[in-house]
Amino acid sequence: MPVGTKATVKTMRPEELKEVGTQILLGNTYHLYLHPGAELIQKLGGLHQFMHWEGPILTDSGGFQVFSLGGDYETRNHSGITASSKSLVKLTEEGVEFRSVYDGSKHFFTPEKCIQIQCQLGADIMMALDECAPADSSKQYAKKALKRTHDWASRCVKEWQSNVKCQMSNVTKQALFPIIQGVVYDDLRIESAKFISNLDCPGLAIGGLSVGESKATMLHVLETIEPHLPKDKPRYLMGVGMPEDLLEGVERGIDLFDCVLPTRLGRHGHCFTHAGKVNLYNQKWQTLNQPLDPDCRCSVCQNYSIAYLHHLIREKEILGIHLATYHNLHFLLNLMTEIRAAINADKFPKFKKQFLQKYQVGMRGE
Amino acid sequence: MPVGTKATVKTMRPEELKEVGTQILLGNTYHLYLHPGAELIQKLGGLHQFMHWEGPILTDSGGFQVFSLGGDYETRNHSGITASSKSLVKLTEEGVEFRSVYDGSKHFFTPEKCIQIQCQLGADIMMALDECAPADSSKQYAKKALKRTHDWASRCVKEWQSNVKCQMSNVTKQALFPIIQGVVYDDLRIESAKFISNLDCPGLAIGGLSVGESKATMLHVLETIEPHLPKDKPRYLMGVGMPEDLLEGVERGIDLFDCVLPTRLGRHGHCFTHAGKVNLYNQKWQTLNQPLDPDCRCSVCQNYSIAYLHHLIREKEILGIHLATYHNLHFLLNLMTEIRAAINADKFPKFKKQFLQKYQVGMRGE
Repeated sequence: MPVGTKATVKTMRPEELKEVGTQILLGNTYHLYLHPGAELIQKLGGLHQFMHWEGPILTDSGGFQVFSLGGDYETRNHSGITASSKSLVKLTEEGVEFRSVYDGSKHFFTPEKCIQIQCQLGADIMMALDECAPADSSKQYAKKALKRTHDWASRCVKEWQSNVKCQMSNVTKQALFPIIQGVVYDDLRIESAKFISNLDCPGLAIGGLSVGESKATMLHVLETIEPHLPKDKPRYLMGVGMPEDLLEGVERGIDLFDCVLPTRLGRHGHCFTHAGKVNLYNQKWQTLNQPLDPDCRCSVCQNYSIAYLHHLIREKEILGIHLATYHNLHFLLNLMTEIRAAINADKFPKFKKQFLQKYQVGMRGE
Repeated sequence: MPVGTKATVKTMRPEELKEVGTQILLGNTYHLYLHPGAELIQKLGGLHQFMHWEGPILTDSGGFQVFSLGGDYETRNHSGITASSKSLVKLTEEGVEFRSVYDGSKHFFTPEKCIQIQCQLGADIMMALDECAPADSSKQYAKKALKRTHDWASRCVKEWQSNVKCQMSNVTKQALFPIIQGVVYDDLRIESAKFISNLDCPGLAIGGLSVGESKATMLHVLETIEPHLPKDKPRYLMGVGMPEDLLEGVERGIDLFDCVLPTRLGRHGHCFTHAGKVNLYNQKWQTLNQPLDPDCRCSVCQNYSIAYLHHLIREKEILGIHLATYHNLHFLLNLMTEIRAAINADKFPKFKKQFLQKYQVGMRGE
């Protein structure tokens, strides 16, 4: 899922999102709730109409940004203050109080309110409010945070089931995905996998990974919980989505991913290719009259030389970061298409090996 | 002509330039010569292939930027220096020496070299090197600058006629347009109109306007020279292109315009509409679920509300400035289409009156 933080996948028109093969995109509840506001988006016809995207939209609960951006307003605007930024987020069993990263105003999210906001936005898939504890949390804290995550998940399910506003039509209802947590502790992760799987929801997510732990640890957690997950519900690994992650994740049973990196890296002139990641700023591209990725069929690789992309990025031209973003999204979505085809043809292990061989050799070269 | 300064019309993909009705675009020789370099562009297949634009391209001579950016490197990089910035441009009969705005390096443009550079770029229409004297030049200086402009124009024509590299195929040759100057002095303008018209070139341009003189003065100059211009050559008014300018210019016999304003204003959140210019930052658009311009058929006005555009611009989202740019270019190119239709239907005066009535009432309201 390309990430459309503030009702736009940065630099991309919806027509272009379709071109690169987007099936579903992600919106950030935290940002949309604050700017321009969920009520306003509802009044303007919902997020789909607001941003002119007809396909499915998943919104997160806002919880991740509440915790990760919690101290940003103070540190950005009053740099003299040395108090721990964490103190600006007040966590209770009832919910979480935080200050807006935009203007410092106070807000309070409860599980119920998160569902109500996501109803207003009109998301096709809503996420339950959870506590994403840091990767280095003690087991004691991880346990406490997990209890809160499970309590909140149950409250989200209750609100979702009773809230008539989640009913989109006579037959369609907004979906709700609760989130498995448990930091890096096997027993907590298994406990959470069982608890979350038993909630009456059409899908589920795995949160709290790719937040500082090692790649090996992340993959170990995925392997640990896999046997405890239902076969018939889609599984969404949150905040993960580099090319190698998609392959490793799919191998461990993941269906859905989201990640800001393809768009963020593109804005910084970094592009995925079949031969590894490429830095467009590199002087060596200045005279090369060849596509960015000769194995890519996207319109950027069909129409432009890497010398032109280098020129645009070096001159800080907006078209440069747009074309880099466009290519990166196409690259990842095309990789997922190829993965699906490989699975259907019963050739996933071979496909994975071949892809990574070429990709990682390229990475060492760069 | 949309302006594609550094081999890109800022934020616009070539496919989008076609969508908004672009027939021809402009490239800046000064910038392309310095970054990434005319030789490199030639090696990469010429400007058309480099930027993936199949339609015609006009390049300016670079002279305007040499004079207008002449002192910028020093003032930007050594702000302690108080010497007049003009002194960094050294003008002789032979040509003009200047420092690069990028790195301060010294360069020398002669009329011949300007043609050679534009040959390398592969422009369909090249411009002659001229001296664009300031609007407040004394008559004595204006006369001197005009003599130089005419001498340089003759040298450009000679170089163009003898340079075999300007021959694009057996039948097609790059075109050359020389430029009428003369500041605001009627007799000098008439002298220049006659001299430039007599050169054996397929078209001509009118330069040195919209550089500080009043609108009334500009229109007076156009009226003064009109009877002295050949009927069978296209006339290009350089650096002019607001909606009202297009109407006034066409009425006085102008065929071609270029202006950075539709793209630059777009990047600052200002948009043309049939009811005047609109500032997208204005808070009053926050909740308005209507198109930016209800009378516009571009895909921005068909697909998005002004509330969404306001949100994007306020959040400094790249998509916001892209959509504003897209709409502005469509607006001006569509206006030219309507002007051509009105002329063909013998209804230009009525069309002009009706357009300006609505547009200017809107301008007063904003």
